[in-house]
Amino acid sequence: MTFSPLIEELIDALRCLPGVGRKSAQRMALHLLERDRQGGTNLSQALQEALDRVGRCQSCRNHSESDTCSTCVNPRRDRHKLCIVETPADVLAIDQSTGYDGLYYVLMGHLSPLDGIGPEALGLPALFARLQESLGDDVVQEVIIATNPTVEGEATAHFIHEHIKSLANSAQISVSRIANGVPIGGELEYVDGGTLAHAFAGRKAW
Amino acid sequence: MTFSPLIEELIDALRCLPGVGRKSAQRMALHLLERDRQGGTNLSQALQEALDRVGRCQSCRNHSESDTCSTCVNPRRDRHKLCIVETPADVLAIDQSTGYDGLYYVLMGHLSPLDGIGPEALGLPALFARLQESLGDDVVQEVIIATNPTVEGEATAHFIHEHIKSLANSAQISVSRIANGVPIGGELEYVDGGTLAHAFAGRKAW
Repeated sequence: MTFSPLIEELIDALRCLPGVGRKSAQRMALHLLERDRQGGTNLSQALQEALDRVGRCQSCRNHSESDTCSTCVNPRRDRHKLCIVETPADVLAIDQSTGYDGLYYVLMGHLSPLDGIGPEALGLPALFARLQESLGDDVVQEVIIATNPTVEGEATAHFIHEHIKSLANSAQISVSRIANGVPIGGELEYVDGGTLAHAFAGRKAW
Repeated sequence: MTFSPLIEELIDALRCLPGVGRKSAQRMALHLLERDRQGGTNLSQALQEALDRVGRCQSCRNHSESDTCSTCVNPRRDRHKLCIVETPADVLAIDQSTGYDGLYYVLMGHLSPLDGIGPEALGLPALFARLQESLGDDVVQEVIIATNPTVEGEATAHFIHEHIKSLANSAQISVSRIANGVPIGGELEYVDGGTLAHAFAGRKAW
């Protein structure tokens, strides 16, 4: 015995969510049908609307319903700083914890030649053009590369750094990379060797 | 900074799913928008369709798209047996593991007077009428009460049992309750006291 066809379809469809397997999907489907039909209707509509109307900001490539996202048009943002991140979730994480007040550029991924993801797919030509051609109030003076400290993220950061160094106006742009080291609250004993080596090599004078 | 309004709405809507908090909902929303728009569209449609078209089987109260569900109309099912369970998930669990070939009756909950859930809400009057009035091939000879072994489930089982005993044709209906005891693969040391007491009191001659 299985559930009725429509319920099975719903369970299958729910499995496209990250971290949701057959059992969780079944629990979700039955929960919505038995206890929260209004929530289910809301979810269906919100999902369809978001998929239909959310596109990319033409300036920073982040998700946006308008041509330019609210961060990019915010006059209180320092337009001389640009932070390069991999995903929209990174934008939120940095904004909520660091007090950074500049603009962002969202790659929506990292360089991964084996998967066919090159500089074009990450919008890097547009980024380099923007760095080279920005003028006046919009001129970018500081670039912070905040891709993930993974192999792919480091390679992407390296690629971007090398390219910026080759720009005609590279002397006017300071490029930095977020620091590697021991996480706050961590214990040295349990920190992996690579991180500890980075933290040791990158020690700062006190 | 937060996400754009439509994305925030989607994140809020996803939180109606069981076990999904703000962080998981955010991850799900961004995953659908960034990597699986087709899956998101499927999900939205499957959800809406299931909510619109899935109702109750008029015979067993389980979810069904038709008036009578596929289990109730299945001619290979033994119509003399009726298993009473709390939820549709219980039907699936019993069907997949026990080899039971009779029909089910799904209460969609348990007696809970404080929440205003009485016999009517669980369809018990209809169940008792069916037990009393079924004739010929449809006559119910065996009732297996498989509500959960919780306080509410036990109370519900007790209520049903008492009521069946008071029916005019109660002599023709054998009523049983699924066994309590030590789970297979469990270790006595870690089994809770109530379960162990039940397992001990309910020991079977070998």
